[in-house]
Order: sequence, then structure tokens, then C-alpha cells
Amino acid sequence: MTVWLNGRLVEDAAARIDPADRGFTLGDGLFETIRVKAGAPRHLQRHLDRLAAGAALLRLPLPYDPAALAGAMAALIAAGGIADGVLRLTLSRGTGARGVLPPADASPTVLITLAPAAHMTAPVAAVIARSTRRNEHSPLSRLKSLNYLDSILARQEAAERGADEAMLLNGAGRLAESSVATLFLSVGGRLLTPPVADGALPGIRRALVLERHGAEEAPLTPADLARADEAILTNSLGLRPLVSVDGQPVGTGSAGPVLVRLLDDPEL
Amino acid sequence: MTVWLNGRLVEDAAARIDPADRGFTLGDGLFETIRVKAGAPRHLQRHLDRLAAGAALLRLPLPYDPAALAGAMAALIAAGGIADGVLRLTLSRGTGARGVLPPADASPTVLITLAPAAHMTAPVAAVIARSTRRNEHSPLSRLKSLNYLDSILARQEAAERGADEAMLLNGAGRLAESSVATLFLSVGGRLLTPPVADGALPGIRRALVLERHGAEEAPLTPADLARADEAILTNSLGLRPLVSVDGQPVGTGSAGPVLVRLLDDPEL
Repeated sequence: MTVWLNGRLVEDAAARIDPADRGFTLGDGLFETIRVKAGAPRHLQRHLDRLAAGAALLRLPLPYDPAALAGAMAALIAAGGIADGVLRLTLSRGTGARGVLPPADASPTVLITLAPAAHMTAPVAAVIARSTRRNEHSPLSRLKSLNYLDSILARQEAAERGADEAMLLNGAGRLAESSVATLFLSVGGRLLTPPVADGALPGIRRALVLERHGAEEAPLTPADLARADEAILTNSLGLRPLVSVDGQPVGTGSAGPVLVRLLDDPEL
Repeated sequence: MTVWLNGRLVEDAAARIDPADRGFTLGDGLFETIRVKAGAPRHLQRHLDRLAAGAALLRLPLPYDPAALAGAMAALIAAGGIADGVLRLTLSRGTGARGVLPPADASPTVLITLAPAAHMTAPVAAVIARSTRRNEHSPLSRLKSLNYLDSILARQEAAERGADEAMLLNGAGRLAESSVATLFLSVGGRLLTPPVADGALPGIRRALVLERHGAEEAPLTPADLARADEAILTNSLGLRPLVSVDGQPVGTGSAGPVLVRLLDDPEL
């Protein structure tokens, strides 16, 4: 498999991350997961805007401009011959000496990989994670950072409890999102999603549903799952019905009319 | 510089982390920072016990037993000719395909590096971080995981505010620790440190001070800094007086008798 690493297409077996890269030693970086459809990255500008905003918050200089990154992705798609798939762009701080404070002269690492992937629409049975919670008090809850262990723990718990996915609560006990996706609940004709202030990642597809389908941010608790007519999980790779949580069906326990409407939107 | 990677001593320039290593892509792993004094790792068994407990929590198989890891460290110390320094052992999940759930057949990466380092005793001027908080609701607050971005953010904020270090509050507004060290406050003859339940990492030196110097766990708030006679920050690399927070002196604003007592303990 070919990857793009710091400006060059290379075979993955020859691609090397330095053991002193702070992405590896401290999780010091960000990533974006971008759907590729018909040979083109979807909503690329939104992804690159989010990446740039996250990099600014981490004071992490982005060593390539949007045009260069778009060119890299196009080259990778051409090299891989993959028209339907998923790109992952990883931006790390690059190497640094021991210590938490980043070096002033950081030389960041940019890695772009491409894998085949179909759009996911299969129903999801989830549990509410007991093992961990999302930290709404940290700006990291609003970034796709390389610090993914809370999601990993929650997902391992889901697997051990026989579920596909885990819902994460925040410190206040409100629903934040799933381990990898945004939650939408249809309640009495309104389409609701947890606010960013409650620990929800501002996902690209989340933004599109808010903008194009009249969804609203609203604090949600586990009790709201019981009164929802329909629940949906979205991320850049899927639009999926959330059919049960902790063994209890949500709504009718199958895909509903709101999901059908979202799947009909060619922009989504 | 020589490093030890997956069973072999290699020059760092030849050492390669796979771009698909989940340590790099997701921060999926742990580390230990171990002081080397007179050519020997300090409190090695405690460090390896903590590593094993963390690996068990993450369901991350540790591919080397304690004797093999101790042998690796001895070989690295001999190769580097460094008698006074710091070892860092990094354990990551190893490579994995896309997705949050770890592969069932994970083949973890173990990297050990060694750098010269003197024991740190210089006074610390800190700020209380406004940029982020520690998540006492996550088991990660009790592990030295590769998810260090909250500490990085706090330390960047400290540097921008002209301070050496940042104190992190937890979600409830109580003191948890500094970006890299345990906090001890001497208050009315008692030596107090934030409980693990408040988001304090169970540090090795923290445990030694609790066991050997009659320190006690107690919830602490920023207001407690004003009534402390003395404040100390400890980790495996230092025992330092915390002399001011947000520009206000703590105690006398210089090293005090409790620090002198701790520095006199050859086990610390």
C-alpha cells in the first residue's frame, strides 16, 4: 500500500515514523478521516478547515497549505486506484527531546493513508460506557486529536458486553457522543444532538445535518433515549440507525424516516 | 544514541515505528519514566508493576516479562555509558487496521530510550491552567498513557503566561496534579496530596512519600494553596519546591523543611 509521508508517496513498508515523534510518545497531534467517493475526497475544505483550527489551538504549525494537501490526496487516490474509500490525514508535532513542552522549532509530521471502505449503514446496538467518560472541560473534546484511548476503552467494553458501539457520557452524566460518531435523536418531530459544550466533537457530517436538516443542539441524557422516536449515529464514514442501547430498543428498534431522509441527501 | 526496540539494541536513526502503529495513530499505549542513578534504574519493580496494571486495564499484552525488560534497560545503560539519567519505556498496541477497536492479535511495540538527566530540584513558579482540566472520570487519569495532550496544552499555557509549570484542576474544580508531577501541600503539620479519585496519577514517588513520610490523601482546592506552609512537586525525576502559583507565593515562597526532609531520604 502506498502512503504519503512528509511530501512524498512511499510504500508503507518503507515509511518510517521516528521513535522520538511526539505523535508516538505523547499523542501530540491531530487527524482527519475523510470519505472518498467516486475518486474524490468529500467535504475536503471542511476537513482542512477543522484541521487548521485544531492545529492553531495546539500551536502546531501545519507545514503544507490546503492546495498541497489536496494534491497529496489526489496523488494517493490515483496511486491506490481506490475510488471508494477513506483517507486518513495524521498531523503530529514531529520529533522532540524529552519533556512535555513542545520544541519551539517543531518540524511536524504529516502522514496520509488511504484504505478501501464502503459507506456504513448497518444498524448499531450500543451500550452506555461504564468504563470512562468524555471530558467536556477539555478543548480536546472538540478536536480529533491523537488521544483516542477513552474511545478505545469504551469500544473494548462494548465488545465485551456484546455490543457494536459505546455511547459516552460526559462528566455531568449527559450524552456526549459514541466512541466514534455523533448522536442524533428524533424526539417529537425535532432532531436533537448533544452540544459541543457537552463534549460532542463538532463533526463534519454533524454540521451538515444541523445546517441542512433543521437539527438543533440540546443537552441529552440517557432518559432521552427512551422517549426518542428514532436515533442515528453519523460520522464521515456512515449514517447508521442506533436501534438499541443497553438492550432496550430505541424508537421502533429499526431504521426510521429521518434516517431515510438523511440518506436521500446527496450532500451527506 | 542507542535505543532498545522490540528486543534489539539499535541506533535511533535506524529505529522505525510503523506508520500504522496505534501508538502513533491513536495514542494507544502507555509509558514509564524511570530515573537512573549510579547506573541502575530506581524503583524498577514499582514501575514495572504499574506498567503491568495499566496494560491489563487496556487489555494490552505485554510481550516481555519483567526480567527481560530489566535486562534491556541494563544493556541500554551499558551501551549508552550513562550512569545518571532517565529511561523511558513506551508500550504501544502495535500496528492495526483502521478503526478504534484493537485487533485481537495485537503485536505490541516496546521502545526503551535513555537520556542523560540530572535530578531536578529547582524551584517552580506555576499557574493554574485555564485551558483544560484533568478528567477524574476516566481511568486514564490513573495511567501514564500516551494521551498527554491535556498536559501539553497546560504546559504551553504556563509558558505563555511566563511560568514554569501548570497545575491542573479536575472537572469538579479541585487540584489534581501539575502537568507532570504530584502535588504535596504541608498544612498545619500534615502533608497532603490529592486523592487518585480526584484525578491524581498514582506516581511512584507519590507512593513512597505516602508510605515513608506519613503523607495523606485529601481533596485540595486552589484555596488550600493560600493556607499551605509549603508546597512540593514530585515525580520520578525531581523533588521541587512549588514557590508560587498565579503570582502568589506559597508558604514562605522558598524551599521549606518538609522538602529538606524528603531530599534527605535515600529511598526517594
